[in-house]
Amino acid sequence: MEAGLRRRLKLPFLRHPAQVVAFAFGVAVAIGTALLWLPIARRGPGGAAFVDALFTAVSALCVTGHVVVDTREHWSGFGLVVILALAQVGGFGIMTSASLLGVFMSRRLGLRTRMWTATESRGVEMGDVRRVLLGVVKVSLLVELVTAVMLTARFLLAYDRSFASALWEGVFLGVSSFNNAGFALRSDSLTAFVADPWVCLPVLAATILGGLGFPVLLELRRQFRRPRQWSLHTKLTLTTTSVLLVLGWLLITANEWGNQATLGPLSWDTKLLAGFFQATATRSSGYNTVDITEMTGASWMVMSVLMFIGGGSASTAGGIKVTTFALLLVVLVAEFRGEQTVTVFARRIPERVYRQALTVALVSVAVVVGSTLLLVEMTGAPMDMALFEVVSSFGTVGLSTGLLADLPDSGQILLAALMFLGRLGPITLGAALALRERKRLYEYPEGRPIIG
Amino acid sequence: MEAGLRRRLKLPFLRHPAQVVAFAFGVAVAIGTALLWLPIARRGPGGAAFVDALFTAVSALCVTGHVVVDTREHWSGFGLVVILALAQVGGFGIMTSASLLGVFMSRRLGLRTRMWTATESRGVEMGDVRRVLLGVVKVSLLVELVTAVMLTARFLLAYDRSFASALWEGVFLGVSSFNNAGFALRSDSLTAFVADPWVCLPVLAATILGGLGFPVLLELRRQFRRPRQWSLHTKLTLTTTSVLLVLGWLLITANEWGNQATLGPLSWDTKLLAGFFQATATRSSGYNTVDITEMTGASWMVMSVLMFIGGGSASTAGGIKVTTFALLLVVLVAEFRGEQTVTVFARRIPERVYRQALTVALVSVAVVVGSTLLLVEMTGAPMDMALFEVVSSFGTVGLSTGLLADLPDSGQILLAALMFLGRLGPITLGAALALRERKRLYEYPEGRPIIG
Ligand SMILES: [K+]
Ligand SMILES: [K+]
Repeated sequence: MEAGLRRRLKLPFLRHPAQVVAFAFGVAVAIGTALLWLPIARRGPGGAAFVDALFTAVSALCVTGHVVVDTREHWSGFGLVVILALAQVGGFGIMTSASLLGVFMSRRLGLRTRMWTATESRGVEMGDVRRVLLGVVKVSLLVELVTAVMLTARFLLAYDRSFASALWEGVFLGVSSFNNAGFALRSDSLTAFVADPWVCLPVLAATILGGLGFPVLLELRRQFRRPRQWSLHTKLTLTTTSVLLVLGWLLITANEWGNQATLGPLSWDTKLLAGFFQATATRSSGYNTVDITEMTGASWMVMSVLMFIGGGSASTAGGIKVTTFALLLVVLVAEFRGEQTVTVFARRIPERVYRQALTVALVSVAVVVGSTLLLVEMTGAPMDMALFEVVSSFGTVGLSTGLLADLPDSGQILLAALMFLGRLGPITLGAALALRERKRLYEYPEGRPIIG
Repeated sequence: MEAGLRRRLKLPFLRHPAQVVAFAFGVAVAIGTALLWLPIARRGPGGAAFVDALFTAVSALCVTGHVVVDTREHWSGFGLVVILALAQVGGFGIMTSASLLGVFMSRRLGLRTRMWTATESRGVEMGDVRRVLLGVVKVSLLVELVTAVMLTARFLLAYDRSFASALWEGVFLGVSSFNNAGFALRSDSLTAFVADPWVCLPVLAATILGGLGFPVLLELRRQFRRPRQWSLHTKLTLTTTSVLLVLGWLLITANEWGNQATLGPLSWDTKLLAGFFQATATRSSGYNTVDITEMTGASWMVMSVLMFIGGGSASTAGGIKVTTFALLLVVLVAEFRGEQTVTVFARRIPERVYRQALTVALVSVAVVVGSTLLLVEMTGAPMDMALFEVVSSFGTVGLSTGLLADLPDSGQILLAALMFLGRLGPITLGAALALRERKRLYEYPEGRPIIG
């Protein structure tokens, strides 16, 4: 497929499958921008500004949900469909391409189909491109359908809405939630539903499932009742996800408990629901049921950390990914215990794999620190707001402390670049690193500089 | 020595040489606090407040230079001598203990004297405790003496000072600079000398030398003219130090060039001098010739990064150390080039060594992020200020954005703990990790979770 695409399009620079993925996303951004730039996509007279169209297309395709113009006020029905389609294509494209890059990796390593289950190294059996594509389509549609039905029912039963209006918002939210796109049809996101578990919980469930990643979902479907047989990838993803959710829930809820502009006026059970919603949404969907701009600096910091880590590999969530983060912790524990090898869940992690994790994490830290510095220079904003905005874009979360609202064009372009980089970067970087391996014909003597 | 000390003092918990070092520093803090708490140490009637005495003792011993009370106004001549002695003991203690921990490491590994030159793994030959101690004393006194003489001469010739006053400030600054302690006899640090290269340059030189670390200084003295024979440790330290100095110089000077409250009103050559001074001082001495509180948020960020990285191993500088930082970059480059082994300057870095670097860096990031969160909660300060203050304490730099001035006692104790941890942490952590090695009798199968 890779070679075929290259031959047909005569694109000799697309040597690496990771480059094919990046190129495809670039083309999709161009098409999306063009469609949103059409006057027909805009509500009211005249077309959208080019930068707004570009930003919104990137935001949708990269399933970020950052908005510089009010989604419902600015875009026509056609525009909204384009946004939703871009989000669906983006979420689908990321899950399939991340999974397919895995297939290419296995081929490159000289192994054929079924190598993953055989060595238990990737945990899922998906040696077949067609099966991956079909599997992703099936899982996506299933979760989106169930979520949409539950939300539509709730809007009909409790909010006295017309069927068409309830269905449209239900479908929009269902697609947007599973793809962690974070677009809502209201300018205040889901704030209206802060106390309604029948809206919050389906959205949460779709968000969490979408954020686990296709390999994990596939494995859960196959052997949900046999957790001992789950692959290392699934075990690591589920454990880390649970820990991050609970920690985020505790910290955000505790920090905002008495804040009159956020959780303060709510009853205790709504506080717990809203705290959990925000902890989940921050890990990648980017919805909010309380006002993010009014949260404390401490909450912003906690949320920045959660957004940076993000969700699962080959998922619709962003960030450096929970497995990358978990591997760093695993190395740390091994080091403190004085182990010679790095092991977790009775599996030894090869040196190359945690070096990849380290590389993905370091490059991401460098990008975030550099971009925050740039954004501080561009806008003169306080560092915590700039950091939040940068991590939110890089982690394709789409929450905002309010800085986004009056950003100059240069700032919008920086954030758009971050979304694109953050959406593709870790995947393609991880794949590119895993594929490259250069053998040395000679060995240098050992050197041991002093550490610390 | 380790076993002897343990037997004599009957301290069975001091099993590890790194624990001995931590214990010795704890005792020194207690003595220093007691001395500074004495009424005789205080200028004017009554003794110092306990928290002030404790904070100042930790600040001096950990060669940080953070002040909560004006050094010259608050302390008597006796108090100043105690502070200077603590800084000298601290700087000396760190250089020797970090070097000696290296000796213990080499013994534990079953190698005897001369192992470092033999395998070129540490680069310096110092198998002998006595020789390390004498070497550190000699190098310290030499650099301090030269600096003190130059400064005293300048104060006498250009500032029309009495000999006693010029000598006292010259010696104080000489000792304080080489030990990167950052204490000055003026409440505005060295702001008075912003345009005087004859004061700035000797202070800079002593700061940089002290920040290279004893192993590097020893090697430079022995084979200054044969750079090809330098050890990997020396090459890494010198290269990284140079790059950080130049980058810091450029970024700080560019950011503050037009800031009327800092570099703005100065002539272009003084701007360059002050920019270079601040880039150097930020890496650990903590002096300033321009007003830190008036600098831009972007400069604070650059400085926070520099402070976090710090200086050389077994030096008077703090931070995670330049070799730790350099090794992370080296791993990154190896990964991008698809190398199987991590090499730099024609030396292969063993897996265990860069895992140590990773561990030191990750633990430090966790401490800094956690403490910043705590300080934001305690004071409600903006994140950039809190981060700066935390990194400045943890990196034993001692610069402040002004937050320190009105910190509650809880905040002072947090920063004192950070200074202590930051001063000892990376060294003892590095040593402890290098000493522990646990062999597994069985090997788990490989697991390869998806990264990124
Ligand atoms: K999102
Ligand atoms: K200092």
